[in-house]
Amino acid sequence: MPIDSMVEGVDVPFSRTVWMEEADPTAVHLIDQRKLPFELAEVVVRTVDEMAEAISDMTVRGAGCIGVSAAYGMYLAAVEARELTSQDATSAMARSANMLVSTRPTAVNLSWAVSRQLIALTDIEDGLDRVRVARMVAEGIANEDVASCRSIGTHGLQLIQELHHRHTRAVNVMTHCNAGWLAFVEYGSATAPIYAAHDAGIPIHVYVGETRPRSQGTLTAWELKRAGVAHTFVVDNAAGHLIQRGDVDLVVVGADRVTRRGDVANKIGTYMRALAARANEVPFYVALPSSTFDPGTYDGLSEIAIEERHGDEVTHVVYSDGESSKPGRVLPDGSAVRNPGFDVTPAELVTGLITERGICEANEAAIAALFPEIMNGTVR
Amino acid sequence: MPIDSMVEGVDVPFSRTVWMEEADPTAVHLIDQRKLPFELAEVVVRTVDEMAEAISDMTVRGAGCIGVSAAYGMYLAAVEARELTSQDATSAMARSANMLVSTRPTAVNLSWAVSRQLIALTDIEDGLDRVRVARMVAEGIANEDVASCRSIGTHGLQLIQELHHRHTRAVNVMTHCNAGWLAFVEYGSATAPIYAAHDAGIPIHVYVGETRPRSQGTLTAWELKRAGVAHTFVVDNAAGHLIQRGDVDLVVVGADRVTRRGDVANKIGTYMRALAARANEVPFYVALPSSTFDPGTYDGLSEIAIEERHGDEVTHVVYSDGESSKPGRVLPDGSAVRNPGFDVTPAELVTGLITERGICEANEAAIAALFPEIMNGTVR
Repeated sequence: MPIDSMVEGVDVPFSRTVWMEEADPTAVHLIDQRKLPFELAEVVVRTVDEMAEAISDMTVRGAGCIGVSAAYGMYLAAVEARELTSQDATSAMARSANMLVSTRPTAVNLSWAVSRQLIALTDIEDGLDRVRVARMVAEGIANEDVASCRSIGTHGLQLIQELHHRHTRAVNVMTHCNAGWLAFVEYGSATAPIYAAHDAGIPIHVYVGETRPRSQGTLTAWELKRAGVAHTFVVDNAAGHLIQRGDVDLVVVGADRVTRRGDVANKIGTYMRALAARANEVPFYVALPSSTFDPGTYDGLSEIAIEERHGDEVTHVVYSDGESSKPGRVLPDGSAVRNPGFDVTPAELVTGLITERGICEANEAAIAALFPEIMNGTVR
Repeated sequence: MPIDSMVEGVDVPFSRTVWMEEADPTAVHLIDQRKLPFELAEVVVRTVDEMAEAISDMTVRGAGCIGVSAAYGMYLAAVEARELTSQDATSAMARSANMLVSTRPTAVNLSWAVSRQLIALTDIEDGLDRVRVARMVAEGIANEDVASCRSIGTHGLQLIQELHHRHTRAVNVMTHCNAGWLAFVEYGSATAPIYAAHDAGIPIHVYVGETRPRSQGTLTAWELKRAGVAHTFVVDNAAGHLIQRGDVDLVVVGADRVTRRGDVANKIGTYMRALAARANEVPFYVALPSSTFDPGTYDGLSEIAIEERHGDEVTHVVYSDGESSKPGRVLPDGSAVRNPGFDVTPAELVTGLITERGICEANEAAIAALFPEIMNGTVR
């Protein structure tokens, strides 16, 4: 297991990004992602309010990770409500659910995880039963996240093996943003095939793009460094040049939403990497757990609203002075700023989707063949 | 003149990036680009050693600007050598020339400007004559730079006028890096059509990309703000999305070198913008004075060596704390880093070249029709 090898020599003994320990059933532990890549620290959360704050202030980030965090938030809400009357507890749980969902309104996994808790807790009248079920559901969602990412790794590994056999040298993979361990519970989505290949002894090297404005590439570099995976960090502008010069065998990115036809909404900058890959006949894959499919949308360009985030992320860069991380201003006042957080890569630029059930082409028929229950609307 | 309007209310009364004042014939004035975009300050240079240092430490940067600075550096060398014997002066001038050229070995304009001085000064025996000629040559090169950029503006203006007539709204131009006033003596190359359009009363809006790693987009934003040109600053990752969504009518960039067939070496990241423009049928133009043509190369991908710069530019970002600008670390030690400074955009992605003699297609025949003397090798 690649993640286990990460914890050797580390002060904080964890292998997941969100976890509970036997000793204390009122504490949920999180990795404080705001302090990375300069400091690895954990945060202990004991109330649903604290969990909502941790999601809101980006102590935790990444689709899978915030979904699981919210599920544990509902568990903490159940602990707090355990001595209330059944009616009061139901109201309290509903308030907690609303609070958690509103922290990051566009995150699909967040509302999905909270809904799963609400459905499981319906009609449970005893406070301690509610606590037991809520914990079971939270752990179930976390375990599913781990299992999905592990399967994505197994399927994606085949692509890397094929490239290794063809080139008989280290395989060069490019990724973007952090669709890694930190964004999920273990393994990550785009990084899962990388960790699987590294684990299988296939020589692999990863180009990691900075991913301005929030520089999540520094998280990916930190992860890969800890796992002992060879990697090279570059500015976002270098991606096209590296692909053009044959330095990249395979591009693998994550996704925030994938439509019925396979259009991919992902971190801003993904689209230009897909264009460069296509222009140079380099395969471009998107790794995602099936919870990222959005069967309610078809045309990503017209149907997915792109979040415009705060301009401060653009006018400032977070740096470390050796003591702490802080925002430094790179652009003076007086210029307008735009900050679209995501872009849409049309399905025709996507070579394939790497999911927990296997790899498929980015089109409606291929996705439906792997996930009929999602595309038929029977399960979301 | 757009630049004149920039100096209203400014403490330092200049309209050029490199200039001399009547009062003191031993001083060359430069804008200190290291302090921008946070502070507008001038540096006074009095010796050729100081000028070499100013070019080397990037007090001045940009193709045209460093060429003119080097020409004035040779003037200062002539001033210093004015009382030497003819033989000693010739040796001193040769040493100064070598020193200036070695500061930025890949910059074409630098060696071109220094060679022009050496040729003009050959066989001048009198020290004061040498000073007079060197000053005349330096001012001539500066004036040519201004005239070329002005002509590029006039020709490029037609493109913007056509787009304005077609859309009957403000024209949205995207640029990359700083091919502006600061990179030349006045007007700039890619910015010249923008200033000309603004001057002609055509409503125009410019998308300025940050241009990591050195963030020269902040210089472009600063220039445009001073000139009163509407603009929006974005991270480099946003370029593809903006082009895809129809927010960009025209892309105009500068160039560091253009080959016989029209391949364009320019700041890293240019290639992905060209790909996005082509994929979305947005015109992609390159603005350049003819001194940027390199008739000795044909295939840019195989014949132009791409400079790999120091990794510190990638692991750090320059920010301002309100007092001064300093580098802040964004990536911890322990990851490999690559920092290619330029990329090559193949001629087939270039809609046209905007030169001081007009606009032509990016191919050998079209370039030769406009600049037969360069392509025939009779003038470099």
